[in-house]
Amino acid sequence: MSDKATSPASGKDLARKPRGFPDKREGLIQAQARLVETVTGVYRQWGFEALDTGAFEYADSLGKFLPDADRPNAGVFAIQDDDEQWMSLRYDLTAPLARFVAEQGQGLGRPFRRYAAGPVWRNEKPGPGRFREFWQCDADTVGAPGFHADAEMIAMGAEALRAIGMKPGEFVIRVNTRRLLNGVLDSVGAESPAARLAILRALDKLDRLGASGVADLLGVGRKDESGDFTKGAGLGAEEVKRVLAFAEAGAATRAVTLANLARAAGFTEEGKAGLAELEAIALALEALGAPEDDVRIDPSVVRGLEYYTGPVFEAELLREVTGEDGKTYRIGSIGGGGRYDDLVARFTGETVPATGFSIGISRLAAALAILGEGGKLNGPVVVLNLDKDNPGLALGLAAELRRAGLRAEAYMGGASMKAQMKYADRRSSPAVVIVGGDEVAKGTVTIKDLEIGALKAKAISSNEAYREARPGQIEVPRGGMVEAVRRIVEAQV
Amino acid sequence: MSDKATSPASGKDLARKPRGFPDKREGLIQAQARLVETVTGVYRQWGFEALDTGAFEYADSLGKFLPDADRPNAGVFAIQDDDEQWMSLRYDLTAPLARFVAEQGQGLGRPFRRYAAGPVWRNEKPGPGRFREFWQCDADTVGAPGFHADAEMIAMGAEALRAIGMKPGEFVIRVNTRRLLNGVLDSVGAESPAARLAILRALDKLDRLGASGVADLLGVGRKDESGDFTKGAGLGAEEVKRVLAFAEAGAATRAVTLANLARAAGFTEEGKAGLAELEAIALALEALGAPEDDVRIDPSVVRGLEYYTGPVFEAELLREVTGEDGKTYRIGSIGGGGRYDDLVARFTGETVPATGFSIGISRLAAALAILGEGGKLNGPVVVLNLDKDNPGLALGLAAELRRAGLRAEAYMGGASMKAQMKYADRRSSPAVVIVGGDEVAKGTVTIKDLEIGALKAKAISSNEAYREARPGQIEVPRGGMVEAVRRIVEAQV
Repeated sequence: MSDKATSPASGKDLARKPRGFPDKREGLIQAQARLVETVTGVYRQWGFEALDTGAFEYADSLGKFLPDADRPNAGVFAIQDDDEQWMSLRYDLTAPLARFVAEQGQGLGRPFRRYAAGPVWRNEKPGPGRFREFWQCDADTVGAPGFHADAEMIAMGAEALRAIGMKPGEFVIRVNTRRLLNGVLDSVGAESPAARLAILRALDKLDRLGASGVADLLGVGRKDESGDFTKGAGLGAEEVKRVLAFAEAGAATRAVTLANLARAAGFTEEGKAGLAELEAIALALEALGAPEDDVRIDPSVVRGLEYYTGPVFEAELLREVTGEDGKTYRIGSIGGGGRYDDLVARFTGETVPATGFSIGISRLAAALAILGEGGKLNGPVVVLNLDKDNPGLALGLAAELRRAGLRAEAYMGGASMKAQMKYADRRSSPAVVIVGGDEVAKGTVTIKDLEIGALKAKAISSNEAYREARPGQIEVPRGGMVEAVRRIVEAQV
Repeated sequence: MSDKATSPASGKDLARKPRGFPDKREGLIQAQARLVETVTGVYRQWGFEALDTGAFEYADSLGKFLPDADRPNAGVFAIQDDDEQWMSLRYDLTAPLARFVAEQGQGLGRPFRRYAAGPVWRNEKPGPGRFREFWQCDADTVGAPGFHADAEMIAMGAEALRAIGMKPGEFVIRVNTRRLLNGVLDSVGAESPAARLAILRALDKLDRLGASGVADLLGVGRKDESGDFTKGAGLGAEEVKRVLAFAEAGAATRAVTLANLARAAGFTEEGKAGLAELEAIALALEALGAPEDDVRIDPSVVRGLEYYTGPVFEAELLREVTGEDGKTYRIGSIGGGGRYDDLVARFTGETVPATGFSIGISRLAAALAILGEGGKLNGPVVVLNLDKDNPGLALGLAAELRRAGLRAEAYMGGASMKAQMKYADRRSSPAVVIVGGDEVAKGTVTIKDLEIGALKAKAISSNEAYREARPGQIEVPRGGMVEAVRRIVEAQV
């Protein structure tokens, strides 16, 4: 619009929004709220309690993204407080938990089992589906060294995904441990951080590139379809074979995977310790009744963040989606976690065993919307306001409907009946209540079922015939309004 | 602790938290979640839909607090984006709504009725009870000029406060309008902004200082108990009398207040228009069935924010609290709102009528906690983990309890039985399940009711007698565990 105001500071349209912070409307908000309620409900049932640490932490407490003088905003949104100290908006829910545990010390009691749900912020380049503000929903057990604490996280994560409606085979939580990976890296003589990283990166692509692609990346390198060449990790043929045998040990059941791994041999002490961790986790998963479909042991899982010290978990949606371009997409990772025994030690020197699981709520809500599972929108019943001089009539009828437990509003303002009907359509209203002069004189109300009305209207060809048929429209005595509206609303649910 | 790490940047303890962003624990979080659920539930029932605009807006969109070059953080938390534009964390939920409406234009449909609940941030000096991050829960109707839209906000606000448990007389929503105030200011010849502000400030203190205190502040000035002198607005005796007659027109019923106001005379055209607004609102409140106790017309209400253009509402808790110092305190304002017809015009030039109501959720949650209405904490049932070699037993029992719908966890780790019992106490667990070697051999479980146990233990004098009596402790066959635990948990609710 040409009459829009511009910013005195930037000269740009005032009514604009920073990129990466999308406005959310009814459907997405309700879907997200249902997810948070369901997931936190599972976490609570498993005994976790709520902790909310707020949006800001001191940047040096967050650690990883400590702003340097030149780029205080790299990765996070950082701000200098009045006393010159840098504060950052949290980039996940785990780092603030570590600060909280360190600050509380022994007074907190251990194990400390908490859950949290809320937004986190990352100062990254926004793009399609890449936001700078999104919701996570985490559970963590702090102060429990046993691997059954990890197993509990995994089984609970699976239960949470089932609770939000995922069927067997529609998702999987893949489990690995850092120590097993370290053992394999050691066994092929990869010593420098760069060499180890190259191998882990190759492994991480097993799902996408298959064994031969990964073999190329482990060896001299790989040329992709576009002709681009990626330099490989430079392993010899024998080493490539060993890493692949390890990575491909994953099988349909956890017991077979563990047996495969035990045979994949070449294990160092570190690798054996890792295998023992996975065996302990598998036993506990059994005790917890976690289905084989939901939880697999998969030695190719790497998982990005630096701070994991033992088991790592990756939760993935397996259902495929057909995009507008006709191609098939996987939503992919929707959460994960792992053991991070060193995170509190940063603050206090004391190693505090900790393990956690995080579900990416925003990502999951977007995925469910793509999958067409956002759910039907149900708007309020609208009482049309046809008497400008006496809006009290419409207000009173809406109040009566609400007192009966129905969701209802009186139309606010004095627009034409057509405009008011259009408003009710736009709000996905199940019905409108109409009280014009006729109805007042007769002591009745007219109720229009908008769903049936829309269906029947399709079959009617002319405006005249429409006015004659008045599809979905009934007139009832004033005292029967509540029950008549209730019947219409309930029939539509 | 002496071994705590310090920040390389500030040399301070790493495990510290910026002031004004308090960590919240279980009790407060649950209380706040209940408030949000209840209040948004009322807003939804009245036909409002959800809108979430996210944390950041461009600073120039927020307007009021546009950062200047020297103090980009004055009042808000502002940050420069990669493209040099200033973004701010929202300081309320209304300014982002105005930006959204302006951006969407006519495509949005009017009236647009939305609710929102979430944190807002203010960069102010933190102090006791003064936070820099707090939750609000708002409803707004955009595009409705009629005063019945204001009345709806007021009646709905009252219903929301009833829904969270407020009894008649425990709260009040006081209603006034800017135009009535303007009329009075005009009628006593107050022309300069400073003179008008001095009178409004005096009026705002009627509740606290009474008529004679306000009379002093309207006249030459007032000396308070400590001897400090506040300069007055400098009105003559006749003008003071007129303003006081106006401010004190408030009565027990809306009809009497309106009659008093009509008599208080001295009205300008602006004042008469204000009285007509209040009369229209009173009629609509009647139609909506808003009790006299809940909603009063009170000409002394000023309400701070600059942007109101018509009716203003102030919601106040009336219940008094006795502080630790033995003195009596009022919680005071817990919300409010009003009409702000000019807020969208900033962006588009188009005047868009709008009215809204906001409840201060954090403030209300804190108030309820002070009033002792935080609710009882109910922890999970804890299955003790007494067999280090086989945590699977405890894990399996906890899983069985959860499958039966109970909230339960297995103790994570292998601490002593005493430490595990202490943990359950700390978690406010209703019961613990104990399966030691004896129980395994006999095929039983021992269940301890921690509430009855604690009560009975008080009556037992010696450790020996305690061991003999085992208060609140029962042993049941393994197959009867779920029902026995359920009975104990349900008896405690």
